[in-house]
Amino acid sequence: MKQPLLIDLENNVYLDGDDLVIIDRRKLPREIVKVRCSDYGDVARAIEDMVVQGAGDIAVTAGFGLYLTARRLSGKDARKDLAELEKAAERLRATRPTGFHLAVLVDKIVGKVRDGIGERSASELILSYLRKILERQRSISEDTGRHAESLLENGDTILTHCFAGPALLYMLRYSREKGKEIKVFCTETRPYLQGARLTAWSVSEMGIDTTLITDNMAAYCMSRGMIQKVFTAADRIAMDGTVANKVGTFQLAILARYHNIPFYILAYGPPDRRTAAGKDIPIEMRNPNEVLEFRGIPISGPGVKALYPAFDLTPRELVTGIITASGVEHWKNPVHQRSKP
Amino acid sequence: MKQPLLIDLENNVYLDGDDLVIIDRRKLPREIVKVRCSDYGDVARAIEDMVVQGAGDIAVTAGFGLYLTARRLSGKDARKDLAELEKAAERLRATRPTGFHLAVLVDKIVGKVRDGIGERSASELILSYLRKILERQRSISEDTGRHAESLLENGDTILTHCFAGPALLYMLRYSREKGKEIKVFCTETRPYLQGARLTAWSVSEMGIDTTLITDNMAAYCMSRGMIQKVFTAADRIAMDGTVANKVGTFQLAILARYHNIPFYILAYGPPDRRTAAGKDIPIEMRNPNEVLEFRGIPISGPGVKALYPAFDLTPRELVTGIITASGVEHWKNPVHQRSKP
Repeated sequence: MKQPLLIDLENNVYLDGDDLVIIDRRKLPREIVKVRCSDYGDVARAIEDMVVQGAGDIAVTAGFGLYLTARRLSGKDARKDLAELEKAAERLRATRPTGFHLAVLVDKIVGKVRDGIGERSASELILSYLRKILERQRSISEDTGRHAESLLENGDTILTHCFAGPALLYMLRYSREKGKEIKVFCTETRPYLQGARLTAWSVSEMGIDTTLITDNMAAYCMSRGMIQKVFTAADRIAMDGTVANKVGTFQLAILARYHNIPFYILAYGPPDRRTAAGKDIPIEMRNPNEVLEFRGIPISGPGVKALYPAFDLTPRELVTGIITASGVEHWKNPVHQRSKP
Repeated sequence: MKQPLLIDLENNVYLDGDDLVIIDRRKLPREIVKVRCSDYGDVARAIEDMVVQGAGDIAVTAGFGLYLTARRLSGKDARKDLAELEKAAERLRATRPTGFHLAVLVDKIVGKVRDGIGERSASELILSYLRKILERQRSISEDTGRHAESLLENGDTILTHCFAGPALLYMLRYSREKGKEIKVFCTETRPYLQGARLTAWSVSEMGIDTTLITDNMAAYCMSRGMIQKVFTAADRIAMDGTVANKVGTFQLAILARYHNIPFYILAYGPPDRRTAAGKDIPIEMRNPNEVLEFRGIPISGPGVKALYPAFDLTPRELVTGIITASGVEHWKNPVHQRSKP
């Protein structure tokens, strides 16, 4: 089975000489374009512009932004160095507000440096921590994928939205290893088409039967018995169980409930303890031009406005189960599985 | 108030010299491209390729296809002429299977010619009948728009999908004349983007506040109290009340029900007596490449398949009311109107 590029973050976000290289996800899979970042400002812009996306991946990328900053510190004045690092941290934290991993990781890195700066250089501290994080993320992805795989039955077709990250790919790899035949439907996920460009591409690279649909075809497919389970990721889960994820997730959950199809979240980790409820999750509103244009070409008339909420909130009662590295947590009101046609 | 091009079919499908000219809807609003059709084969291809779309509009366009054929008949051998016309009718009927107006109109025209060919030439018969049909369609659109308008309250924001035809534009014009302030949200309606290109453009040309969203943002907007009513058209309604319309309509109806938002169909006319139930409506499956490419550029990986059902079926119980030229028929289980936020 071919290893898809996006199964491992180190394939597409890595240090090269003095720069951080990010494979531009907006251009995948047609072109492999390397965006070189030489300081935290470059990294912040790359995150904002969605050169890299996904809650866990933007967190580690922001961490590398701190590393680029740390490498230039004089090492002579710890207080001044920390202030520089804090400045970079502030810029990076402000890039994308909905996911929580980025802010948590940036805070942790600044804390690590503050605690350890007497003994080792800031850049050494950050790099060794990022290596640990990358290792841990990989094992979290594998474990989440393994637990998710236990939910699949031979012959299932799953529907997924946006790019749910490596756990989705591990889930499919493990299901193949167990001899289960799984097919995948991907919503294209407008406006950035992550479903078409990243997920459908990655899954089909693994040799799995992959079908692309537009975002408005989900109910049609569900009603015709084409879908047995839905899996999406989460950018943040509040303590009340509300799931923030790529816009469109909420409506897939409603449609799955209407059709009595289980709806699972690949959460990787637990809820964010700092977020009590769904209403506390800020929804990032992106530039409306990203809806009004397609590859730079306007798709509507001159007087038309647009709205671009990048995420939406799915209430806990629509979610059948949350899958983390520790296992599957089923909510109290599980949906009975729809029998296959 | 500016008159939008698409409020009147005669603006964009008309005879010019020996040809039928169709303004290419796939290019609107950026370019006004005229597609010239000199015989029924050209017309059939234009309908198949969606140069013109909408159940009523493709019906009249097919009628003009018969007219182009009729104009070339010798007029010497009625049986031979009728056979020629029937050949054209067969080709035109096969273009798009989901809407029923096209087949009904083509049958009617052939019948008219069969009945009247002794007295007048086939081309005269067809042209005078098409003029009547155009006149009647305009008055049906106006009346449907007038009844729909009665459902609007000052301050409402409506959501609409694909291009619901002139009745939507008349509804908005009449609401303006009555001093109601109505705003419009349009789903872009992938893959052909009729919502972005045709509806949002037409509505904003009328000076109405128009907001474009991608198809996966509908539930988000509903959950935030941004939408008070949903209006879509219908390509066919079965006798059991099932509505066939542009793919995505069904899921909007589910989302509207979840959010307790009324969901109305601009039906123009009554159900199709020849179609007993939803299961009797053929769903046109279009070329998957139309999903895999955007303006000719592939958006996914090489091994990915796609599905393109052009329509879906909305069951009667999800529809709050059906609006025709005769009035508004409320179903038995009306949704209570959501109070505005």
